Amino acid sequence: GSVAVIGASRKAGSIGAALLDNLVRCGFKGPIYPVNPSATEISGLKAWPSVLSIGAPVDLAVICVPASAVEAVVRECAEAKVRGLVVISAGFRELSAAGGDMERRLRDTAREAGMRLVGPNCMGVLNTDPKVCLNATFAPGWPPRGNIGMLSQSGALGLAILDSVKERRLGLSNFASVGNKADVSGNDLLAYWAQDSATEVVLLYLESFGNPRKFARVAPAVGRIKPIVALKSGRSTAGSRAASSHSAALASPDTAVTALFEQAGVVRVDTMEEMLDVAELLALTVLPPGPRMGVITNAGGPGILLADAGEALGLAFPALAPATLDALRTFLPAEAGLSNPIDMIASATPGQYERTLKLVGNDPAVDAVIAIYIPPQVSRPEEIAAAIARGAAEVPKEKPVVTVFITSEGAPAGLHLGARGKLPAYRYPENAVRAMARAEGYARWRERPAGTELALDPGARSRLRERIDALRAAHSGPFWLEQEDVKAVLECAGIRVANARQVRVEDAPPVAGEMGFPLVAKAVAPGLLHKSDVGAVLMGLDSVAAVEKACRDLERRVRAAGSTLEAVLLQEQAGPGVDFLVGVTTDRTFGPRLVCGMGGVLVELVRDVSFRLTPVTDHQAREMLSELRAVKVLDGYRGSPAADRVALEETNQRVSALVESVPELLEMDINPLRLFAPGKRAMVLDARIRMG
Amino acid sequence: GSVAVIGASRKAGSIGAALLDNLVRCGFKGPIYPVNPSATEISGLKAWPSVLSIGAPVDLAVICVPASAVEAVVRECAEAKVRGLVVISAGFRELSAAGGDMERRLRDTAREAGMRLVGPNCMGVLNTDPKVCLNATFAPGWPPRGNIGMLSQSGALGLAILDSVKERRLGLSNFASVGNKADVSGNDLLAYWAQDSATEVVLLYLESFGNPRKFARVAPAVGRIKPIVALKSGRSTAGSRAASSHSAALASPDTAVTALFEQAGVVRVDTMEEMLDVAELLALTVLPPGPRMGVITNAGGPGILLADAGEALGLAFPALAPATLDALRTFLPAEAGLSNPIDMIASATPGQYERTLKLVGNDPAVDAVIAIYIPPQVSRPEEIAAAIARGAAEVPKEKPVVTVFITSEGAPAGLHLGARGKLPAYRYPENAVRAMARAEGYARWRERPAGTELALDPGARSRLRERIDALRAAHSGPFWLEQEDVKAVLECAGIRVANARQVRVEDAPPVAGEMGFPLVAKAVAPGLLHKSDVGAVLMGLDSVAAVEKACRDLERRVRAAGSTLEAVLLQEQAGPGVDFLVGVTTDRTFGPRLVCGMGGVLVELVRDVSFRLTPVTDHQAREMLSELRAVKVLDGYRGSPAADRVALEETNQRVSALVESVPELLEMDINPLRLFAPGKRAMVLDARIRMG
Repeated sequence: GSVAVIGASRKAGSIGAALLDNLVRCGFKGPIYPVNPSATEISGLKAWPSVLSIGAPVDLAVICVPASAVEAVVRECAEAKVRGLVVISAGFRELSAAGGDMERRLRDTAREAGMRLVGPNCMGVLNTDPKVCLNATFAPGWPPRGNIGMLSQSGALGLAILDSVKERRLGLSNFASVGNKADVSGNDLLAYWAQDSATEVVLLYLESFGNPRKFARVAPAVGRIKPIVALKSGRSTAGSRAASSHSAALASPDTAVTALFEQAGVVRVDTMEEMLDVAELLALTVLPPGPRMGVITNAGGPGILLADAGEALGLAFPALAPATLDALRTFLPAEAGLSNPIDMIASATPGQYERTLKLVGNDPAVDAVIAIYIPPQVSRPEEIAAAIARGAAEVPKEKPVVTVFITSEGAPAGLHLGARGKLPAYRYPENAVRAMARAEGYARWRERPAGTELALDPGARSRLRERIDALRAAHSGPFWLEQEDVKAVLECAGIRVANARQVRVEDAPPVAGEMGFPLVAKAVAPGLLHKSDVGAVLMGLDSVAAVEKACRDLERRVRAAGSTLEAVLLQEQAGPGVDFLVGVTTDRTFGPRLVCGMGGVLVELVRDVSFRLTPVTDHQAREMLSELRAVKVLDGYRGSPAADRVALEETNQRVSALVESVPELLEMDINPLRLFAPGKRAMVLDARIRMG
Repeated sequence: GSVAVIGASRKAGSIGAALLDNLVRCGFKGPIYPVNPSATEISGLKAWPSVLSIGAPVDLAVICVPASAVEAVVRECAEAKVRGLVVISAGFRELSAAGGDMERRLRDTAREAGMRLVGPNCMGVLNTDPKVCLNATFAPGWPPRGNIGMLSQSGALGLAILDSVKERRLGLSNFASVGNKADVSGNDLLAYWAQDSATEVVLLYLESFGNPRKFARVAPAVGRIKPIVALKSGRSTAGSRAASSHSAALASPDTAVTALFEQAGVVRVDTMEEMLDVAELLALTVLPPGPRMGVITNAGGPGILLADAGEALGLAFPALAPATLDALRTFLPAEAGLSNPIDMIASATPGQYERTLKLVGNDPAVDAVIAIYIPPQVSRPEEIAAAIARGAAEVPKEKPVVTVFITSEGAPAGLHLGARGKLPAYRYPENAVRAMARAEGYARWRERPAGTELALDPGARSRLRERIDALRAAHSGPFWLEQEDVKAVLECAGIRVANARQVRVEDAPPVAGEMGFPLVAKAVAPGLLHKSDVGAVLMGLDSVAAVEKACRDLERRVRAAGSTLEAVLLQEQAGPGVDFLVGVTTDRTFGPRLVCGMGGVLVELVRDVSFRLTPVTDHQAREMLSELRAVKVLDGYRGSPAADRVALEETNQRVSALVESVPELLEMDINPLRLFAPGKRAMVLDARIRMG
């Protein structure tokens, strides 16, 4: 390959100089062409007035001219048949609407010419492959070769993470600062990393999503092969305000991001430090086959802190097998604590570390081992580290071994001398278990079956389409469906809805007589959304007289709420059961999202709901329920009868299938969905649908 | 003062040698007496065969002989009128029951002789006062003088924290590793630190509480003057009491610790790193007067991460005043982002840092400033640091200024050059806001009024005492109160209970006729705790016939649940309202704890309850409600009417007063407490009380 640096400069401290300097110093294997119309030579290389004047093929052009000059340069690159562009220059979409127009033109020019474009407003790209050695960034320093691929939407933050990666003696396969993502996006890089054998761990720093629904397809495919760790910022109002002014990105609801990452098997981290902690574990060791940790330590305190933090994160600290304990007793002092964490006490020797680590690691009750060292006055950290490295080599290969060295001097070099190579080393016990818990969660995600989606049958789909088209023809903007249409749409999707008839107030008593009892009467009044709030739902009507009285009550209450009673909805009264809600909201970027929780006002108060992006598989529908704190009511909690969990799962899947068939559906709220006893299914008692 | 080291040794690597060496090297101002019967001289000091042979007053004896020899040594110290003891030796309560006996004898000997005793099983004590210079630990290294006092229940962990404190260039006033706390406890040290002017911040690492109720009195008094930061381990205790009742099921030992710390104003931290982060902020700067943060940064990404983390922890990032923005516009580039966080972009110069920091810090919308620096290629960290130090000096003194330097090279020394002295510096943005949020929470606690406790009047107290004494006389072990006693006890405490009569089954219909309707009938049956679970509560009984039928139903249901119907409780049926629960559980160490939450089975499912140790002030009773997610129902949520919040607060206070007057009360569960409309008070519909 060959690289042109357009905007290369001799001025010390300038980006053009730093870029050229990095390219030269990293030992790039191909020709480097500095392009600068007012120089004939820069840093000992012949300089060219324009990319067109080079007269040799250019694979990559790195552009760092002022924003106003970028368009012309890109057109020249197209003419010179450059294959790829990295636009460092800022002053596009992140700055102004005019900059946004300019950015779209850049992208169009590049696409027409078949050039891929990274940026603009980025810090460049970097590839440590010894056959390439490309450092097209203006970062100070060159990271060691390794197995981490990284994308950052913030250049500066990306470089800071590279700096930390280097400090932890981890290595990088390649790095891209993607800036405004005019063309090359995270999805493109994920696809690249999926097939790049040098990359075993992917790190993402994201501030926004360009195409989250594509990400939802690409990421799980990559995640089945190699872990994707993501730090997504902009969760808070202040943060998203800053993010949108910063990268011109649309803020996205964080519940949607959480749902997306969870479904896609992305390891979401909350802080920069956690990202690095998780990366260290994934880059240096295997995934834990389970959550059961064996811990060895030379002091009680850090072991307890580790177990506290680990248990809170879902890890387990089981008792070891009697045979292991017997073996430990043969060489550990009487004062040692043998309940896991194993406290070898302050006198622990290198030999005791090695033997204990080996024994604990070979215990069948343990999936992974964590060795803690805290300096007392007697031991020598280097010897302990070497002993841990030897002991770790005797632990079955499928079990990870990580270490905690609680010392300001950092992890000793001896820790890397064993057959396993570098062992992850953390400064504090809590960091080690936090990283382990993330790795464990990812390993469990990878083992999960993908699940299957429920699809509506073609007949149902065409009936649905017909009705929706008719409704759309009758409305211009978004609109709420009438009750009979709601019922019809849900029934097309195979969802049972309570029998109901909407009638004029004066017709209610005779119609009630035809329908049979008991009945529920609900007010139909303009602008009245939450009917039960104003007492506009009356239940247990068991005679024509009761219905007559109910109509009078509804009229009075609706008037008190500032509306008028247009009609009455008479509905069969369902038998007893447990009420849940199933809903759909849509987001401009993320599309439709399914929500499920227990019904009733308490749900809103305690926010006990779970979300998924559609389409939702059978497996995910089950998972949604397991995330609810209130899930126990389904099994019959504290004397209440059990409810039909399968019907709830199925309703979630059917709503998902409905949404996938009807892209016009903007919002939907089934509340309550009454679940009857197991096997007796469920019934929608009230629902609202909005189309647009 | 003078110090004897009993067990002083020449053997390199031994504890006796390290102790003596530390004492000599730290420059201790008084005489040092090595005691060792088999040496005449150690490290150039004359050695003595026993403490009795010294023949001069000994203020402190540091003991590091084998456990079996400690008792004799302590008796000799008593005879020699030594004033204080530090017992380093291990092998006592932590090892065996015999060790526990030995430890109690040590404590008794010391107390009889008027000696205070630190340890046993500890790492020693340390005082950096230049007039003292005492290092009676075997820790490597001597921390710089400073304003942090620290106690650690784990010696090794304490030393590791000292190591980190030193690495962060913070200073220590004194340090104590208290080990088994046979005599000197955390409470003693808190009392000492309260009056020690050199100590401005207290750090505690605790694994257990000896006397939490004393801590609950001592800690708030200290906390009003100086912050106490505590890392408490052992959250994941497996052996929690088997829960027989409702409230006990919700409680776990850690909720007691949390309640204790929260009431006492103790800053609870979750990890070692967080303890250090918080200590750095408190040791180096003032408390924030409010939660509103002004943030300045040279890159968007870290600012967003900071705002995300801060907002999640309750901090705010308000827009700055127009005047501030106008002033910033005069010198920041057009590309700068002026929504807080202020993004000065990568080109930020030292001058821009200084001026921006000063302007933001002087904005009335801001209570504290956080300055972030992330290295791009152009700027020089040292100059930026010096500029931040200068700018910070221009910020009003009552507003803290902290920094984030995202670089593996650590915070530059220039950061300490301003009039404010050292500024706190964090490696990652999230750490800075986590520390700030803890400091802010503590500052708010300090501002709170202490509140007043409600006391039962003397007449009520004596009626209560009389009845309790009579009941206790009739029982040996713990026992559940009969319904009429429950009612009487609650009414003595001024808590209204629904009118009820417990009658034989056959008497129920005529008694119901006397009581009037509507009524509720509840089964009274041995072993039946949660009545509603088996349908043993029947409501809306509006005639004698309905009561007759109810009795037959109860008989059948109780039999089905494996019990027998002994009697029927007839109770007036209360009007509509909102149901809450108020309960009490007791813990052997922590004593009684009040619990409050919304009533109904959902509470247990979603764990929406709050706890306080008794006694509870009016202020705390209000706070308990504000911690509940379900608190909004009290204001009338989604159409339901508002409820009498004051009556709920008062009930919490009255239950607290009851518990304080009746130490025999082991467990209590008012569920439901029905709250009527505001001003209409509350009524207990069901309650259980256990005494012991």
